[in-house]
Amino acid sequence: MTTSPKIRVAIAGAGGKMGREAVATLTADDRFEVVGLLLRQPGQAGLLGAPETCRVFTDSEQLLTEIHPDIWVDFTDAESVIAHVDACITYGVRPVIGATGYTKDDLERWQQRCRQQDLGGIAAPNFALGALLMVRFAKEAARLFDNAEIIELHHDGKKDAPSGTARRTATAIHEARGEAAAEARIGEVSIASQVTSQENPARGTDVDGIRVHSVRLPGLVAHQEVIFGGAGETLTIRHDSLSRTSFMKGLVIACERVMELKGLVYGLENLLW
Amino acid sequence: MTTSPKIRVAIAGAGGKMGREAVATLTADDRFEVVGLLLRQPGQAGLLGAPETCRVFTDSEQLLTEIHPDIWVDFTDAESVIAHVDACITYGVRPVIGATGYTKDDLERWQQRCRQQDLGGIAAPNFALGALLMVRFAKEAARLFDNAEIIELHHDGKKDAPSGTARRTATAIHEARGEAAAEARIGEVSIASQVTSQENPARGTDVDGIRVHSVRLPGLVAHQEVIFGGAGETLTIRHDSLSRTSFMKGLVIACERVMELKGLVYGLENLLW
Amino acid sequence: MTTSPKIRVAIAGAGGKMGREAVATLTADDRFEVVGLLLRQPGQAGLLGAPETCRVFTDSEQLLTEIHPDIWVDFTDAESVIAHVDACITYGVRPVIGATGYTKDDLERWQQRCRQQDLGGIAAPNFALGALLMVRFAKEAARLFDNAEIIELHHDGKKDAPSGTARRTATAIHEARGEAAAEARIGEVSIASQVTSQENPARGTDVDGIRVHSVRLPGLVAHQEVIFGGAGETLTIRHDSLSRTSFMKGLVIACERVMELKGLVYGLENLLW
Amino acid sequence: MTTSPKIRVAIAGAGGKMGREAVATLTADDRFEVVGLLLRQPGQAGLLGAPETCRVFTDSEQLLTEIHPDIWVDFTDAESVIAHVDACITYGVRPVIGATGYTKDDLERWQQRCRQQDLGGIAAPNFALGALLMVRFAKEAARLFDNAEIIELHHDGKKDAPSGTARRTATAIHEARGEAAAEARIGEVSIASQVTSQENPARGTDVDGIRVHSVRLPGLVAHQEVIFGGAGETLTIRHDSLSRTSFMKGLVIACERVMELKGLVYGLENLLW
Repeated sequence: MTTSPKIRVAIAGAGGKMGREAVATLTADDRFEVVGLLLRQPGQAGLLGAPETCRVFTDSEQLLTEIHPDIWVDFTDAESVIAHVDACITYGVRPVIGATGYTKDDLERWQQRCRQQDLGGIAAPNFALGALLMVRFAKEAARLFDNAEIIELHHDGKKDAPSGTARRTATAIHEARGEAAAEARIGEVSIASQVTSQENPARGTDVDGIRVHSVRLPGLVAHQEVIFGGAGETLTIRHDSLSRTSFMKGLVIACERVMELKGLVYGLENLLW
Repeated sequence: MTTSPKIRVAIAGAGGKMGREAVATLTADDRFEVVGLLLRQPGQAGLLGAPETCRVFTDSEQLLTEIHPDIWVDFTDAESVIAHVDACITYGVRPVIGATGYTKDDLERWQQRCRQQDLGGIAAPNFALGALLMVRFAKEAARLFDNAEIIELHHDGKKDAPSGTARRTATAIHEARGEAAAEARIGEVSIASQVTSQENPARGTDVDGIRVHSVRLPGLVAHQEVIFGGAGETLTIRHDSLSRTSFMKGLVIACERVMELKGLVYGLENLLW
Repeated sequence: MTTSPKIRVAIAGAGGKMGREAVATLTADDRFEVVGLLLRQPGQAGLLGAPETCRVFTDSEQLLTEIHPDIWVDFTDAESVIAHVDACITYGVRPVIGATGYTKDDLERWQQRCRQQDLGGIAAPNFALGALLMVRFAKEAARLFDNAEIIELHHDGKKDAPSGTARRTATAIHEARGEAAAEARIGEVSIASQVTSQENPARGTDVDGIRVHSVRLPGLVAHQEVIFGGAGETLTIRHDSLSRTSFMKGLVIACERVMELKGLVYGLENLLW
Repeated sequence: MTTSPKIRVAIAGAGGKMGREAVATLTADDRFEVVGLLLRQPGQAGLLGAPETCRVFTDSEQLLTEIHPDIWVDFTDAESVIAHVDACITYGVRPVIGATGYTKDDLERWQQRCRQQDLGGIAAPNFALGALLMVRFAKEAARLFDNAEIIELHHDGKKDAPSGTARRTATAIHEARGEAAAEARIGEVSIASQVTSQENPARGTDVDGIRVHSVRLPGLVAHQEVIFGGAGETLTIRHDSLSRTSFMKGLVIACERVMELKGLVYGLENLLW
């Protein structure tokens, strides 16, 4: 077996929690070579677990022009990611975007520019495969079960409720119901069933017609249950995320798949099936 | 082994769902003889599964004077139960009260009258052993865990939320925290921790400082989870009640124990340990 | 809205537990008319909840020739179902087969005969939508998670362990792994990971490389959990079946869809998506 | 409020995983002063998070004679702990023993010696409060439920199955059944119910008449469920331990309580209630 050349990856936001995990994961994987890191402050690649040959930058343009990697993995923040991705596309470097905070307009501009250049790209608000599967399964179950509620459980330090994943799941269920009703493939689907009074907080909050309950306790990390109920049976999909490492298999898949793409795909789930 | 004489039981509300189960359970148990049934309308004991020798009444006084059972099991309703129990005590018949709807005043009057006559009696809003244990365990865990939330899940026909059991559990946790704080047995207990904003319904309703979440879906029956959270761990107590038969073992225990009691006990949990 | 003529259904094994549910369900549904029942012994349709116009037979040929229904729903047993289905096909009546016990040869003969006649047919070992979804989701998750175990929990009267559904789920996971490995779509899949020693019964039994654990307790009905584990996360799919009514929505879907089919389909899951 | 003098604690095995957590926890707690660490190799207290005034030793006798702490917390191993505890007692230093590997004879010798000196001591194979409560609740539930099974779920690096906690839980249930049968407090208890064939590994392994099932998957940490089943209901106690920090509240309680004890107590659960 001839060995194909390694895919050359740069990682922006390499000093943050997600960035550090990304450095460790991609350095450990034979198919990739971590060739550059973007940090806020100068530092040593070795300290972050990257190979000694990996170079460290604090200026994104400099990294792009001097290193010209195959892929730019971005775990920076809302302030930085937009300029970074625009620059990547200009230099023909494929963006794999884990940071959030960009707008719909940014996304559409990137998609248009990547398509024009046949340049692959991925923007993924969530890399955890289990969470992606949960949302996908919830959409499928919603076509056969008229009733669902969501319970999300997080550590007591989490400020917002319900969680972003719970909101996305509820919206996905809502849309799947609409599609099922439109197709009328299988009997009638009574979408109205969940629209009960908002006044009793015991019944949770209403997101797109789905009741969502948020539990906050020390000792929890990040968990979600979607319960579907029908005559005489329930179907439950549960995801338990215990650490940031759960994102890393998704990142590796993204970095593999982006090499073959022509254009920028939003949502890792669209590349898994 | 000499056989002791059977305990003679009358059952009021024998035509209702709980009453029918009670007739079947006590008829099948060698230690008891079902000697009388109180129904709203005349009927045949045999049809309800009682022995043919069992007599059926529609008048409670007539049953008490003609049959004079050892125990009067009452699964009637709020309207009937108060007069029934007062009459039982007058005739020296031990009441085992499964019906609800009586007031605190009624209960205190019964307790005083039973004590004066050395007459045993039990008033039990819940006979399900699993539910009683859940509340008991919740009280014990509350002494060591400062944080708890309750999720109760019921069929979509249930109108009230949160459930009575969830409310009783929250109150029990609240009281146990107070006792623990008073004793200050184990470090400080921060009772205030749960008092977060009532405004976000995603966070459920507040019952005595405990967040309670109510799920309503077809395919569910009657379920409750109490989750305690501490540093690095959670402890969960869950009760799943799938049918009315779960109440019957508790009823048998009540009917055994009431024979030895001097006075009326409220709450079956006080006889189990 | 013009009303289409009702679909005329006969139900074999109408006196059994599943058959009775089927009679009640299809009688209550406007789209269907229950026109004939096959019983072991003569009886009255009305007692089973069928309309008074529904006729009762003890001879299958007589039912087919005299009533000629659109659909023959079969909830009889292994001894009867094979002859019934062969006769149905001969008379051009669509079989919806809920009974089990037929062989692979039987199935292939039926499929060939139905195809020749453009006659619709469905053979479904399980009509519960939740169970079908669970197996489907397990197959999809198996493509992204290398590790899975199954816990199935049933009432203590169940004699076999593991359950048929658990076996089918394990086999489905095994096959999905094989397909994923063949395609090599997403990284390498290490199928061998579960092949640990068979000797420690604490680790359950091995079905196609998947560990399966069987819990048997009173108070349980029929439940299954499939847990997938990956770095830092788990994904759990759980099905709780509390009563036979969970099969009825699937039966209705089968009876609707069989009218459009050309040929006999095995497995209701193949008609749902 | 006058401040009482701080309790002076030495920690043996301070370089190990549990030891490091212990140093951090007791250093952060105002009531304690970490005055000495025992390490295999010389090191600096500050690097381990202890105050700079804390002294580091590699010889246990030297630590005891030069520092003479109030409490000796031991998280070393089977080889070291026995000599350490014997020396502690000789010097009148209270042992809090988190290490395991000592024998029943060791324990009895320590108990006798501590009693003679009115010296407090605690030997605790498990400091996690949630795990202690789980075992306690299981014992109580076993008096009212005749049937139970245990499912324990751990990361795939765990070599033994079933886990020590699962074994202790099963033994506790077995003993509680025996006591309940002896007292015959509540009806008959059929202990024999679980004695089914050992041959089918799907049914788990038998520990003292209780079926135990062990799941091993990446993404899990340390979890256990004890399910009790009775007519129409189940009661489940579940403990999820996500990190070593779950042990630390128990350690603090042990260090508080040992100051008042006269003699050595085995099992932290005996000090909680």
